[in-house]
Amino acid sequence: MDSQGFREAANATIDEIITYFDTLATRNVVSAVEPGYLRKLLPSEPPQDGEPWADIQKDIEAKIMPGITHWSHPGFHAFFPCATSYPSILGELYSSALSGACFNWICSPAVTELETVVLDWLAKTLGLPACFLSTGPTRGGGVIQGSASEAVLTAMVAARDKELSEEEREERVMVKRSRMVALATTLTHSSAKKAALILGVRFRAVRVREEDGYALTRERLAEALAECRAQGLEPFFLAATLGTTDVCSVDDFDGISRALAEHAAPPGQPGEVWVHVDAAYAGAALVCPEVQEATKIALISRFHSFDMNMHKWLLVNFDASCFFVRNRDWLVQALSVNQAVYGNKASDGGLVTDYREWQIPLGRRFRSLKIWFVMRSYGVKGLQEYIRRTIKMGEDLAESLRSRSDLFEIVTGPKFALTVFRLAAKSEGAPLEERNALTRALYEKVNATGKIWLTSTELDGRFAIRLMTGVRTTEKEHVDTAVKTLVEIAEEVMKG
Amino acid sequence: MDSQGFREAANATIDEIITYFDTLATRNVVSAVEPGYLRKLLPSEPPQDGEPWADIQKDIEAKIMPGITHWSHPGFHAFFPCATSYPSILGELYSSALSGACFNWICSPAVTELETVVLDWLAKTLGLPACFLSTGPTRGGGVIQGSASEAVLTAMVAARDKELSEEEREERVMVKRSRMVALATTLTHSSAKKAALILGVRFRAVRVREEDGYALTRERLAEALAECRAQGLEPFFLAATLGTTDVCSVDDFDGISRALAEHAAPPGQPGEVWVHVDAAYAGAALVCPEVQEATKIALISRFHSFDMNMHKWLLVNFDASCFFVRNRDWLVQALSVNQAVYGNKASDGGLVTDYREWQIPLGRRFRSLKIWFVMRSYGVKGLQEYIRRTIKMGEDLAESLRSRSDLFEIVTGPKFALTVFRLAAKSEGAPLEERNALTRALYEKVNATGKIWLTSTELDGRFAIRLMTGVRTTEKEHVDTAVKTLVEIAEEVMKG
Repeated sequence: MDSQGFREAANATIDEIITYFDTLATRNVVSAVEPGYLRKLLPSEPPQDGEPWADIQKDIEAKIMPGITHWSHPGFHAFFPCATSYPSILGELYSSALSGACFNWICSPAVTELETVVLDWLAKTLGLPACFLSTGPTRGGGVIQGSASEAVLTAMVAARDKELSEEEREERVMVKRSRMVALATTLTHSSAKKAALILGVRFRAVRVREEDGYALTRERLAEALAECRAQGLEPFFLAATLGTTDVCSVDDFDGISRALAEHAAPPGQPGEVWVHVDAAYAGAALVCPEVQEATKIALISRFHSFDMNMHKWLLVNFDASCFFVRNRDWLVQALSVNQAVYGNKASDGGLVTDYREWQIPLGRRFRSLKIWFVMRSYGVKGLQEYIRRTIKMGEDLAESLRSRSDLFEIVTGPKFALTVFRLAAKSEGAPLEERNALTRALYEKVNATGKIWLTSTELDGRFAIRLMTGVRTTEKEHVDTAVKTLVEIAEEVMKG
Repeated sequence: MDSQGFREAANATIDEIITYFDTLATRNVVSAVEPGYLRKLLPSEPPQDGEPWADIQKDIEAKIMPGITHWSHPGFHAFFPCATSYPSILGELYSSALSGACFNWICSPAVTELETVVLDWLAKTLGLPACFLSTGPTRGGGVIQGSASEAVLTAMVAARDKELSEEEREERVMVKRSRMVALATTLTHSSAKKAALILGVRFRAVRVREEDGYALTRERLAEALAECRAQGLEPFFLAATLGTTDVCSVDDFDGISRALAEHAAPPGQPGEVWVHVDAAYAGAALVCPEVQEATKIALISRFHSFDMNMHKWLLVNFDASCFFVRNRDWLVQALSVNQAVYGNKASDGGLVTDYREWQIPLGRRFRSLKIWFVMRSYGVKGLQEYIRRTIKMGEDLAESLRSRSDLFEIVTGPKFALTVFRLAAKSEGAPLEERNALTRALYEKVNATGKIWLTSTELDGRFAIRLMTGVRTTEKEHVDTAVKTLVEIAEEVMKG
């Protein structure tokens, strides 16, 4: 493909993308294909000769689109959003042209330096304490990871190895590690458990309860710490959450630090517990000062690391997980592995950041560009306006459900644009199984319309529906449609 | 930014990208900025109000480009290539518009299914044995990872946990793991050591020698295995390499399997050693049947996993690390972690692949699109032609250096478009330090021209220069320029 061919192909692609977004609402949200649909449509062997672009491009609509679930559809109320926006797409476009394996500063100084600047911008916008800024007092800083899973794994490996010197890294380490345990809660994202599995350390999920708003409290954590000690185990890591996947609950940061003060070594001392705050989704809402206030985000100055995904609710397309650490030396100590070919004056002189030492992979893409474009295109006020609008839609939705208490019972929320609800009891004292079955019937029938997509969860045995209103394209009219659909089908289910 | 604004911005970006590639040779390869250059050019706070695109875009050339090291520059002979091409950029463009966190099949069936199809295409094109195909006899298959580092970590965690049942995952595991050791060689990529560090298992690098062509042989491996056993350790993983970073050596696959047959349990039995073949760079050359033959790639049917990066030498932009495993159940068993919200009929029915269970992160991008576009645009013949052309340039370069044996000594290669050389001895029996210092002087002076970029390595104390000719834009004329520059400066250095 030559320059002119690319110009034509790319301009046609741009037009197709615009048409896609302009007409997105007319498509069904979720793909309806059967497993294996694509293999039947494609040759089993790669082509020997190159094909003209026209033949390739027409397969997008014909073969790929039927298999796409549209995460930017206004009726996408499932999981959490996975964003994209025009400025973000432009960022990816430049990034793919400037492709490089930018593991060291010299591999493209702009890739490293823009990342440091925009992550400082973001930290300030989110109201993170100064210890997470690259210019802060504790050698902190931010780094873009691929996902919150990578962030929690990175934090956990640094926490595990923080007090080990290179010489100790065998016999003593093996013994010590066998007693280490990572803590989370029953509503912590599965990535924390996965990180512990990968690292080969023990894992305990502290049960969080409805009466505590599904948040980890001082009492529950204190109990768990004491229990671990009684078993001869050493807690070294806690994954706390700002906005759990199931219900968007926020752990009690003050309570956590008090429990740790009682049951673990003080920060900076051997035996301390590294606290990682996973704010993958809800962290985006911290762009609003009222959310910073309500979540007491300033308290995380007592903790070690924080992660939020701009690619969820903050208009940047996947992947852009923004991971902040109170002291970057902890990452470098755990993750730095050298090889002769990486040597260069800037790195050897210690003057620059080499982000390869802050992450699991070696190479990295130029991901800060899209963050930079989004923050500049929207401005902080534009981001706030967007977050507030989607939170407000969640509140309106919950209000509509509440006004039909004959049909719906809100289980949690609205919180961070997420409402969790189930069908109202058909009669007083209706058995749990019956309510679960009816709620599931409602859930499946609504999803079968194809016009909206909901996901479900289970809370203490109760099957419940999650409805999230954070997608960029979702407007009041779409939420009204969702409510109308829910009411109609709930009436049907309740009757039938 | 509305649709019309995006159209204008994107079309302008496309034009800028075309101009970038058309005029790339006129730029210096490596950025010459000083550390911290960008912070001085950017505001320390994010903008409160959104900025017009025109203001943002002009900063690309003014502020970003000076800090870019151009990995697609024809004079880029450093490290390995990090590719991009027009069809690949188009793939990223669609992917960013269709952004989604495609962890489960239902999250976009096309994302999963296209990946399975194109990785089968790729496996066939590379001549991988059938056990690595999704349709093969051993429940094998391919998955796109972000980097070869993630691939080796994923392979290693699966290898570590392969013989452990869920019930065992605490006391017994801790004891067992403390004796496990991962093996590699002194020229294996640093990611293998990093994976072992992360997983908390012991690591041993077997020294590879010049007389063996820097390849791991049966004898060296047998010695290492015996030594581990003597120390009471259990080797469970070997990172073998097809194309080491330093010199592109290829480990002796037949020798490895013979050594394992003597010193480890047979494949499929407890105590077997998982062999992972890291072909991150040179694996691309397997598109040519003569390379499949020369490397005896069919022998990897005795091994467990294989990884190559299309984003290095095969025209797909970062990231696209293609990881193949002989039995996907090993990955799923090690990496599957469930959460109520992931539940859906297709997954629960076991009919589909959920790639989240084959990787460390949960979410994933639509990365197979760019691979599909590149394979279709070039065709297998186009890929072969490109690889052969760049290998030939490496051979021509080596021939030119060899013809000036008064100036240069080839240390290894040409192999896979990589030649490693040093300055010829100034006089017979010249001390190593002097030769190293002179070679380093040559290296630094050549890089200081800004027109080409070389990296260096150290082999058994000998400082040597690596020159790679695999970048898409590099043509014969650029290699001639590199030779001319090398000769001129070498003459200068030898004289001075």
